[in-house]
Amino acid sequence: MLTQPNVQRRTIIRVRDGRLIRDRDALVVEEPMEIRLALHAADGTHVLPLTTILRTPGEDVELAAGFLFNEGIVRERYDIAAIRYCTDPDIDEEARFNTLTVDLRPGMQPDLTHVQRMFYISSSCGVCGKASLEALRSRGCAPLPDDDGPRISLPVLIGIDATLRQAQALFRKTGGLHAAALCAADGALLALHEDIGRHNAVDKLIGAHLLQGRLAALTRAILLVSGRAGFEIVQKALTARIPVVAAVGAPSTLAVALAQQFNMTLIGFLRGASFNVYAGEQRIEAECETSHA
Amino acid sequence: MLTQPNVQRRTIIRVRDGRLIRDRDALVVEEPMEIRLALHAADGTHVLPLTTILRTPGEDVELAAGFLFNEGIVRERYDIAAIRYCTDPDIDEEARFNTLTVDLRPGMQPDLTHVQRMFYISSSCGVCGKASLEALRSRGCAPLPDDDGPRISLPVLIGIDATLRQAQALFRKTGGLHAAALCAADGALLALHEDIGRHNAVDKLIGAHLLQGRLAALTRAILLVSGRAGFEIVQKALTARIPVVAAVGAPSTLAVALAQQFNMTLIGFLRGASFNVYAGEQRIEAECETSHA
Repeated sequence: MLTQPNVQRRTIIRVRDGRLIRDRDALVVEEPMEIRLALHAADGTHVLPLTTILRTPGEDVELAAGFLFNEGIVRERYDIAAIRYCTDPDIDEEARFNTLTVDLRPGMQPDLTHVQRMFYISSSCGVCGKASLEALRSRGCAPLPDDDGPRISLPVLIGIDATLRQAQALFRKTGGLHAAALCAADGALLALHEDIGRHNAVDKLIGAHLLQGRLAALTRAILLVSGRAGFEIVQKALTARIPVVAAVGAPSTLAVALAQQFNMTLIGFLRGASFNVYAGEQRIEAECETSHA
Repeated sequence: MLTQPNVQRRTIIRVRDGRLIRDRDALVVEEPMEIRLALHAADGTHVLPLTTILRTPGEDVELAAGFLFNEGIVRERYDIAAIRYCTDPDIDEEARFNTLTVDLRPGMQPDLTHVQRMFYISSSCGVCGKASLEALRSRGCAPLPDDDGPRISLPVLIGIDATLRQAQALFRKTGGLHAAALCAADGALLALHEDIGRHNAVDKLIGAHLLQGRLAALTRAILLVSGRAGFEIVQKALTARIPVVAAVGAPSTLAVALAQQFNMTLIGFLRGASFNVYAGEQRIEAECETSHA
């Protein structure tokens, strides 16, 4: 079955031992997928949007089936008559493999009261990464200005992950916590928040600044996250106007596209003296060499 | 402000170099938190449940504020009149610090069309881990029988994380993928699914078995996940009747409680010859010593 690629190559900047090298890198693809449920009753067919999941394309049909199974909507193979991609001819190429409709067997009326996640309803067949970025613009998110936010010199970023780990009190006790930290342009640790969910740790950090009336401080700072940088993490930073996001783990394609479109700086694989810059390198103070590898 | 603890101590079994040692360990607490929005309009106050988040207790007020900010419901400190825990006197002690109501400033009517996550509506003020486990029982989830599923000998588990890593094709390319694998009781790798979301990888694995009419195979197998084992991962395994969950990372308190109540085996920190058993040790074939540390 046709699907989107699950890996995309991008030009990035690798920092190794204080040197910046322009190079190609493989990124994991992250795209939204909408799951719709088609109920075939005596009075006709009813299609309802059930959820939108951020996922890596591939095995989309299996993902939809597993999601419905876990939510208790289907219990066996026989409950599913068909699973099909949206075939609306006037939708974008990019959105074509991002909407799946699951046809339940005729007459089946599942109990939907247990369904835990009813995401926002999109009216068209057009969910895709590009549309997600456009939705942010329509919500009023503007790109960050170039003169906004910190200029960061390389030595500040080197070893900043160790600072984070050292400050993580709960992590040291349990080994099971994500952290979101705020650092100044000079690398000073300004705030640290922990949670079992990486997204929650970022929400706690931004919420604390909101409640203290200190949102403006975010616009000159670096958000450091302990895990990977997916779309939602970078989107939270954008909403709070944090210009630089640095992750200990890998970023996704959609996170990189978001950072590029909104003029944010995105750093990944931050480990000691080695890290990658995926977007917004103008905020990092160093010359760039081109690799001939 | 009063809140729940964010770390709890539990008795676990540590496996080190083939020896099993009963010991105490600190686990990160995971509990659901419901966020309600109170709109104060001219015609009265309307309270609506907005979302239920699984989170680590602590900084709950900040988490609620950050969540509302990210969803575009509030934009500044002034938009929030108050944030308060549910004070309903007849709710359980355990649920008391799991419901927060955010009072918006009088007259404020936020645009809720962008709110992406509208979770299930709970009628009472009683969201807590215990209630989540009871909800699973009321959905028809029964504990797994003791004679069900595999007996696992120690050597099978030792090094199984290396097998997983070796099989992760996408991870090797991008460094950014989670994996869910299915292993037989003898350690043979039966299936592997990857996604940027750990939950999606598990859904793909279970969905593939559903679509192939092979759900029964899951009841004798081990689910191996590349990251941590939170409530939702173990709950997905329970729904699919997978008796053993082994995670490379840490489990949460709620995941352990779920595994204990439903007679599942839960293994965490699976790294080479060292791992911890948090529940269901009867499925692991070895004698147990008690540590005097």
